[in-house]
Amino acid sequence: MTNAVVAHGGGPTAVINASLAGLVRGYRGAGVLYGAVGGVPGLLNGDFLNLSDLEDNGLWDEIALAPGSALGSSRRRIEDGDYDRIIEQFRRHDIRRFFYTGGNGSMGTAMRVEQYARDCKYELQAIGIPKTIDNDLLETDHAPGYGSAARFFACAARDAGEDNRSLPSPISILEVLGRNAGWVAAATALARHAPDDAPHIILLPERRVSLDAIAAEAEKVYRRLGRVFIAVCEGQRDERGLTFGADLDRAGSAVHELASNLGHTLARALTAKLGVRARAEKPGLVGRSCGLFVSVADRKAAFLCGVEAAAAAIRGETGAMIAIRRECSDPYQSSAFLAPFASVAGLERLLPDDWIAENGMDVTGEFLAYAEPLAGPIPPWRRLPVSSRKIVV
Amino acid sequence: MTNAVVAHGGGPTAVINASLAGLVRGYRGAGVLYGAVGGVPGLLNGDFLNLSDLEDNGLWDEIALAPGSALGSSRRRIEDGDYDRIIEQFRRHDIRRFFYTGGNGSMGTAMRVEQYARDCKYELQAIGIPKTIDNDLLETDHAPGYGSAARFFACAARDAGEDNRSLPSPISILEVLGRNAGWVAAATALARHAPDDAPHIILLPERRVSLDAIAAEAEKVYRRLGRVFIAVCEGQRDERGLTFGADLDRAGSAVHELASNLGHTLARALTAKLGVRARAEKPGLVGRSCGLFVSVADRKAAFLCGVEAAAAAIRGETGAMIAIRRECSDPYQSSAFLAPFASVAGLERLLPDDWIAENGMDVTGEFLAYAEPLAGPIPPWRRLPVSSRKIVV
Repeated sequence: MTNAVVAHGGGPTAVINASLAGLVRGYRGAGVLYGAVGGVPGLLNGDFLNLSDLEDNGLWDEIALAPGSALGSSRRRIEDGDYDRIIEQFRRHDIRRFFYTGGNGSMGTAMRVEQYARDCKYELQAIGIPKTIDNDLLETDHAPGYGSAARFFACAARDAGEDNRSLPSPISILEVLGRNAGWVAAATALARHAPDDAPHIILLPERRVSLDAIAAEAEKVYRRLGRVFIAVCEGQRDERGLTFGADLDRAGSAVHELASNLGHTLARALTAKLGVRARAEKPGLVGRSCGLFVSVADRKAAFLCGVEAAAAAIRGETGAMIAIRRECSDPYQSSAFLAPFASVAGLERLLPDDWIAENGMDVTGEFLAYAEPLAGPIPPWRRLPVSSRKIVV
Repeated sequence: MTNAVVAHGGGPTAVINASLAGLVRGYRGAGVLYGAVGGVPGLLNGDFLNLSDLEDNGLWDEIALAPGSALGSSRRRIEDGDYDRIIEQFRRHDIRRFFYTGGNGSMGTAMRVEQYARDCKYELQAIGIPKTIDNDLLETDHAPGYGSAARFFACAARDAGEDNRSLPSPISILEVLGRNAGWVAAATALARHAPDDAPHIILLPERRVSLDAIAAEAEKVYRRLGRVFIAVCEGQRDERGLTFGADLDRAGSAVHELASNLGHTLARALTAKLGVRARAEKPGLVGRSCGLFVSVADRKAAFLCGVEAAAAAIRGETGAMIAIRRECSDPYQSSAFLAPFASVAGLERLLPDDWIAENGMDVTGEFLAYAEPLAGPIPPWRRLPVSSRKIVV
């Protein structure tokens, strides 16, 4: 029997609790599993909740459905003096296994905690559980959390596109989560089922693009259809690397910047350039927390990553993150493997070049084949035999 | 056998197509039912789709599920020279019944078309079908479309609130649809199940409120919880009637102004005042078009309004809108009646004074009892026995 602790790092997803439920299930009988309340602060202060002690009664089945982090999370970075404090708390509870659920930043943290324990001869295994809607983790086919965010924004593009098709706004912009990586923005392409379906332009931070180029492409679509629907990643940059004049937001102590009104700013700029109305929607955090939009495949993958993390620890592994290998896309099949922390920590996986369309404002069929099983089916809505071009008079 | 035409006016909802399906069902056997493609322009140009001719095969069951307007809609106002053109098109197809689905503006249009027909001795019945997410129609208990928008934004507040509870942002703002009426913003109160659940402040356009007053209330909550979640209607005004400096957007030829980045502007203003980070989400049109969030009760009411409109026309009624009378809230039961156009056209129904809390930044229990059966159940997510205050360190 070996005591363990799990902590969450960074932004919650709609399925991070499914990973927690999987870990609890997988660790059953192996020792006490504690949860660090609030992430890093919980680790520092020894604020541990005994998860093994909680009466089940369907608790974990229900927690697995809930968005947000049931344990609480934090963007607090671990600094030099912190390692000692954390190991001290581990020692107090005789904790010998450390599970950390997060993205590439959190995997760096887990790696350093394990390294520090080794240096001071405190026996500790550390296993990472992947989590990020941004899908920017290396090694793993995808990160749990991504499929659900992809599903939300693809459905948002489909439904707002349907709205826009029936009452056209000249330019309609959907701001999509994703920081520096275009994975979620790219997934809005799953909304399309018929020619001229939204989105007509997808802007990906992997391709810097000038306002002039966006305006030219938007005008082309607008002239043809009387409307243009643009999906843009919140982290989009122009050709100079700037954010189109959007206000920037700095998220706590984290180093990344978010352009928090990029869609709106881009809408204003396009109106000024093209002389037609533009509006922007920004579901923002609703897109990463929307419980009803969870992709079934994503929740299942998240749960299994928790189960696999427990199994890896029990069989003696350490210093690695659970990763997903895609065995087959159709039907979708995957298996789990271990990716050493050093291969993922602090590294960013961007959308591959050859999954981006030649004009730099769309994705290829390869990307769709990749993303569809993760987001789940997004069927079209039934329509009357009415040309949408006729609606625009 | 009497020919009829149906047209849609104004912004689509997630259930306007359910009303259309109900009308088609109700009008079966009574004559040819045409649909005016694209709303007013379809009426002006005689661009009519013969709906009675379409093979069914489950078509209408599926159309009833689809967001957006399957016929297409328009914000084009009817002007003096237009009436003649419309009656001319009606004459060409021997159309004697006119169904118009829309809000208080559209009911004015329907009233004037009927009046014009009477003046020029063209026999025409006009029946209105209520539709607006804003819920600002008089006479009717509620307008179809409202329940689904209420459901979307209540779920958004619940889920983003859960996200914010687990990784607190000092100030989190959710911008809610609704123009001059706070009905949808008010419905975010349905998200709450436990003390201190989001939203902590609900700003309603029925109550102008100064930035200072909002900041004071936000600071109070922030000091207590380490976070504050604010739902604000897009049409909110300060004590002088201004929109906190937000950019204004003018929607086509419609007279209403939308403050299209009010949430973001308010976030910036609160950051400047209180010195803590603030962010804003703006689901915008996603909130009125989201197919998966449709309230079952709302879709049913929308369908029945279509059925009732057909029945009213068939029994010879004219000059009125189908309205809903609430017979009982628990269990919810309603019946339909006819409200003369003059009692709803161009009039705005705001949130009643006594459904707004004393501090002007929340709703009362009476409002919750009103809104809950319309939005449908919004159950809480399961949580671990962790104080959210502990998460904030």
